[in-house]
Amino acid sequence: MSDQLIKPQTLRGFRDFLPETMMAREELLKHVNTVFQHYGFSPIDTPALEYSEILLGKGGNESDKQLFRFIDQGDRDVAMRFDLTVPFARFAAQYAQQLGTPFKRSHIGKVWRGERPARGRFREFMQCDFDTIGTESTAADLETVLVIHDLLTTLGFENFTIRINHRQVLNGLLDQLNLIEHSVPVLRALDKLAKIGEAAVIKEMGETAGVTPEQGAEILKLCSLEGTASEVLESAKENLANSELGSAGVGVLTGLVQQAIEAGVPESRLAIDLSIARGLDYYTGTIFETFLGDLPEIGSVCSGGRYDNLAGLFTKQKLPGVGASLGLDRLLAAMEELKLIASKSCPSQVMILQFDAQFLGRCYAIARMLQQSGINVEVYPEAKGLGKQFKHAERRQIRFAIIAGEDELSANQVQVKDLQTGQQKAVEISELANTLNSQLSE
Amino acid sequence: MSDQLIKPQTLRGFRDFLPETMMAREELLKHVNTVFQHYGFSPIDTPALEYSEILLGKGGNESDKQLFRFIDQGDRDVAMRFDLTVPFARFAAQYAQQLGTPFKRSHIGKVWRGERPARGRFREFMQCDFDTIGTESTAADLETVLVIHDLLTTLGFENFTIRINHRQVLNGLLDQLNLIEHSVPVLRALDKLAKIGEAAVIKEMGETAGVTPEQGAEILKLCSLEGTASEVLESAKENLANSELGSAGVGVLTGLVQQAIEAGVPESRLAIDLSIARGLDYYTGTIFETFLGDLPEIGSVCSGGRYDNLAGLFTKQKLPGVGASLGLDRLLAAMEELKLIASKSCPSQVMILQFDAQFLGRCYAIARMLQQSGINVEVYPEAKGLGKQFKHAERRQIRFAIIAGEDELSANQVQVKDLQTGQQKAVEISELANTLNSQLSE
Repeated sequence: MSDQLIKPQTLRGFRDFLPETMMAREELLKHVNTVFQHYGFSPIDTPALEYSEILLGKGGNESDKQLFRFIDQGDRDVAMRFDLTVPFARFAAQYAQQLGTPFKRSHIGKVWRGERPARGRFREFMQCDFDTIGTESTAADLETVLVIHDLLTTLGFENFTIRINHRQVLNGLLDQLNLIEHSVPVLRALDKLAKIGEAAVIKEMGETAGVTPEQGAEILKLCSLEGTASEVLESAKENLANSELGSAGVGVLTGLVQQAIEAGVPESRLAIDLSIARGLDYYTGTIFETFLGDLPEIGSVCSGGRYDNLAGLFTKQKLPGVGASLGLDRLLAAMEELKLIASKSCPSQVMILQFDAQFLGRCYAIARMLQQSGINVEVYPEAKGLGKQFKHAERRQIRFAIIAGEDELSANQVQVKDLQTGQQKAVEISELANTLNSQLSE
Repeated sequence: MSDQLIKPQTLRGFRDFLPETMMAREELLKHVNTVFQHYGFSPIDTPALEYSEILLGKGGNESDKQLFRFIDQGDRDVAMRFDLTVPFARFAAQYAQQLGTPFKRSHIGKVWRGERPARGRFREFMQCDFDTIGTESTAADLETVLVIHDLLTTLGFENFTIRINHRQVLNGLLDQLNLIEHSVPVLRALDKLAKIGEAAVIKEMGETAGVTPEQGAEILKLCSLEGTASEVLESAKENLANSELGSAGVGVLTGLVQQAIEAGVPESRLAIDLSIARGLDYYTGTIFETFLGDLPEIGSVCSGGRYDNLAGLFTKQKLPGVGASLGLDRLLAAMEELKLIASKSCPSQVMILQFDAQFLGRCYAIARMLQQSGINVEVYPEAKGLGKQFKHAERRQIRFAIIAGEDELSANQVQVKDLQTGQQKAVEISELANTLNSQLSE
């Protein structure tokens, strides 16, 4: 061993999860898994590393640059996955036949992007994806909205909005304006609305897509419609009366909103936002984004949409689908900020104090009996001073301390001290599990 | 999009988890987490990528060669973690003061090793580690045995053996034989016993450590002691009567076995195996390995031991500890082989058939009501022929199909068909959750 210490540090943009944050993350994951299971999504997993050719060029230039890519020991060009969608496309191409369609999969896993670290934004983060492939039915779009809604409420959020758009709505307007062939530069300019403002967007549309100022104003008017989902859809319907494409898009959104409300989603959590343009080259139908009412500035926490063909680069089998991705670690950061995270750093509910190593076997017999009834119990590892042991329990917010010395054990009893109230009483060992469980559930 | 398809494939030694295997893995993980929580281990997580200098040289030459190591976009020399112990050493050096000791952590995560793939052995696999640091108390060693035991039984294994050794036992004999300074080459030769046989081991000991054939025979005799834990310890005690070191080691093991039995571990699952030499340069006290009675050939599924100083390369704070690591994916492969894995590929317990898209909102309202009572329910995404829908449900082993057409809904009823028995009956929607829950729990 060298005398020179190695500096213990993580890489820039990467983070350790200490117990408090990790317990919160595990709690979130449990809820996310429950919602995925409730809706019948089958869980899958794929490797962290893939052949680079599988991942390259799928997320555009930007994500190629962000790839952690290298040559492995076997001279293979490999890279760490930057999302869960591209590996799913590869996966679907390999197994869709075997699994049968429609196929619903959930995938919870880490992804890696060498992007500039920022507040709440890391180079390693966890995503929770769910998709239904092999069907063009809008039932799957509806379900996507319901799953997003139930994920957020199950995680404890009340105040949020699912913003919905449909690619055909704006395309319908462009069609009406004879601009449909310029939709890509128009959408690209539109995407900058929040950043550069209306005038600059209209200017860019003029330069890159030959859009007149009047046409530009009409496009911006449609995209800026505000009000309840029904109101926006009503106005859009009027504006797009002359476009079959646009009317069809409005029709899909109208059905979606109505059915989501019938299924129990409060209308106040749904918004039609005809300016959302995400995933320009990928999404072909509905598009979803989700914003927290109390923290809109962190951006969308759950986004997705419908695509025509998931795996066209890997297979000739056409796999249309719809899905979304919950950014779990971004949400976790948000919850830390909103103080929605409990501060427990240790799962123990009960700690058995240690007096004499010779009683360890019996102490652990008691611990294991309590564990069987669902209680988390630790035994303090050292027969040290009681003050130190109590301090350990309090620091970890452990609710009960059990004192099991020679006298107690020979009477088949223990002393139970409630560290919240300071009350202490003798309890028969045979009654211990019941006593603790009823107090813990109070 | 190019016409040339990219071949959808995973890297050699990496695997996809299809729903069946993934559902089994999640079930295992749930159990592992429960045991860790029951004993009060605090969960943590660390990044997949670390500075190479953190990982290099910690697992010997072999694991350096197996590192997935590269230069990242910021010209940093980085590598993917090959185990969870070295990142924990780095973690402990950073946070032990802040967290306070004794500190018990669990860590479940993937690790990557570019080793030659073999049956049940992959380049990416999941490990479940637990350690107690900051204490030299044998209570933590005892707890390690109990956690290993409870992990295995909770995962459904009955027939397994935890093999225990203590570094001081063999060192005691070497001390008695005046060979203590040659312990490393002696242990290295011993480690090959199963592979090369007794004669070759004695020959190697002679060549590398100056051990006489008589001494070699005595060493092998001690290492080959067989019988119940108590019998082996009794013989070892006699053999090591003249060594303080050896007697102390035997004493620790004797207490450990006795207390584990008192705590409820059947003696038949404990064995003293004085030949275990794993982690030569690392473990300094107790050593543990765990073998499945029905599949001993896959090797130890849970191994660990006591070490003097976890993080000596990163900090001057001395952190003694004890812990072990469960090879979850190896265990999963074993369970597949032993047919201990259920073959479900989808979590849904109920599928609502779809007749007409206009009732989708109400179907999902029913689905969500059932989900709230804990039932996993999917709605078939397309209003296709009933035969196709039933086939979908059967293929996914979904137990109940719900038929909710116009007639049923207008009577506030649905038809429930049990796909196991073929029986079908009308149920009031208000009674549906109770009816299904009671049948599912039968």
